[in-house]
Amino acid sequence: MSVEKTVGIIGGMGPEATVEFMRRLVEAVPAKDDADHLHVIADNNPKIPSRIAALIEKTGEDPSPVLIRMAKGLEAAGVDFLTIPCNTAHYYLPAIAGAVGIPVLDVVALAIAKLNGVTPKPVKIGMLASPAVRLVGLFDRRLSASGFEAFFPDEETEARLLDVIRAVKAGHVTPSHQRTYEAIANRLAEDGADAFLVACTELSLLRPPELPQPLFDTLDILVEATVAAARS
Amino acid sequence: MSVEKTVGIIGGMGPEATVEFMRRLVEAVPAKDDADHLHVIADNNPKIPSRIAALIEKTGEDPSPVLIRMAKGLEAAGVDFLTIPCNTAHYYLPAIAGAVGIPVLDVVALAIAKLNGVTPKPVKIGMLASPAVRLVGLFDRRLSASGFEAFFPDEETEARLLDVIRAVKAGHVTPSHQRTYEAIANRLAEDGADAFLVACTELSLLRPPELPQPLFDTLDILVEATVAAARS
Repeated sequence: MSVEKTVGIIGGMGPEATVEFMRRLVEAVPAKDDADHLHVIADNNPKIPSRIAALIEKTGEDPSPVLIRMAKGLEAAGVDFLTIPCNTAHYYLPAIAGAVGIPVLDVVALAIAKLNGVTPKPVKIGMLASPAVRLVGLFDRRLSASGFEAFFPDEETEARLLDVIRAVKAGHVTPSHQRTYEAIANRLAEDGADAFLVACTELSLLRPPELPQPLFDTLDILVEATVAAARS
Repeated sequence: MSVEKTVGIIGGMGPEATVEFMRRLVEAVPAKDDADHLHVIADNNPKIPSRIAALIEKTGEDPSPVLIRMAKGLEAAGVDFLTIPCNTAHYYLPAIAGAVGIPVLDVVALAIAKLNGVTPKPVKIGMLASPAVRLVGLFDRRLSASGFEAFFPDEETEARLLDVIRAVKAGHVTPSHQRTYEAIANRLAEDGADAFLVACTELSLLRPPELPQPLFDTLDILVEATVAAARS
């Protein structure tokens, strides 16, 4: 019997980001054979009501009942803890965590822990994220409580970033989308960002912007924490 | 409500091949947004007893109880049909299919259907597969019944192909492994293969050998059939 825990993934937001998360989980584990890798059960469900529609356009169905059903299904399937490779979906984390008896990793807490390890301590954290993440204040207060400031692009710029995110979801990223992403990050750097969080798993699928400041990809942070949690 | 069926994946053999299967499923579906993609529940379980140990070395535990447990778990989770991105594991297909009330895709039947569509009809089918696939005769009789011949490398060569498969599982493929794979395929071509099946999902992770004969990757065959079954 393996002493490792089984990982449950609440996935599909988007499905490609979930697959990339799973790929990085395989890559993160040094293995001589199949059995060295983690046991992962993934519900890659792209039919979850759109978080963009619910939180930005405010026209869409509440995704939380589906997220809760998925969490319970994974718990019933025997996973030991849950992980959600989507930042925006963490808005629903309290509802999800309250519905199951197993732990759920919290990407916001993990990202803050990562930033706490940076010396000299950064203050303004450039947020490469969906507008939904800003609108619901997913990171703001918790970053503040640790002495950081969530630093977002202005609204016009963030609309262009949402276009990039939509292009990733539609699977038609062009070099122009990549350049837009790079330019937005560079502008935040010029405006004083001390460090960066890639806080949208669609953006994790793009080439990371080249910046002098430290940049952390929340998808990588979640991979690292998932491997650690499975072995704890 | 979506009219599409939910896909269940009995995965982990190996885990990287399962992730690649899921990646190709995302790629195979033209999508404007997340919701256009298929709902997939994957049990990516690399702890399934080794098929190499059970069927080649004849020292290992029988994998079928774990495979059956996974199939039942996916059925209980609500998937509408099952797919197994591992050729060797299809040796256990009758046991798996007998244990659940939902259909299980059969990569052997699907591969034969694909070969039946080739004109002029190939006879000798070059098998790029694990020695386990030959030893259990997974394809032989069924290919014969359709007028094909399963054409394997000799035992010394097939041992080298197993080394390549093991290198993929260990995540340390070198250019030398890629060259070995290419050379083995080319030798089968010189010896008269009319068409090829990549019939090991670890080999599907390598660059396909360049050959004048038609070559079909069973992982792609399974992707195509999975998309079709989900929409049927």
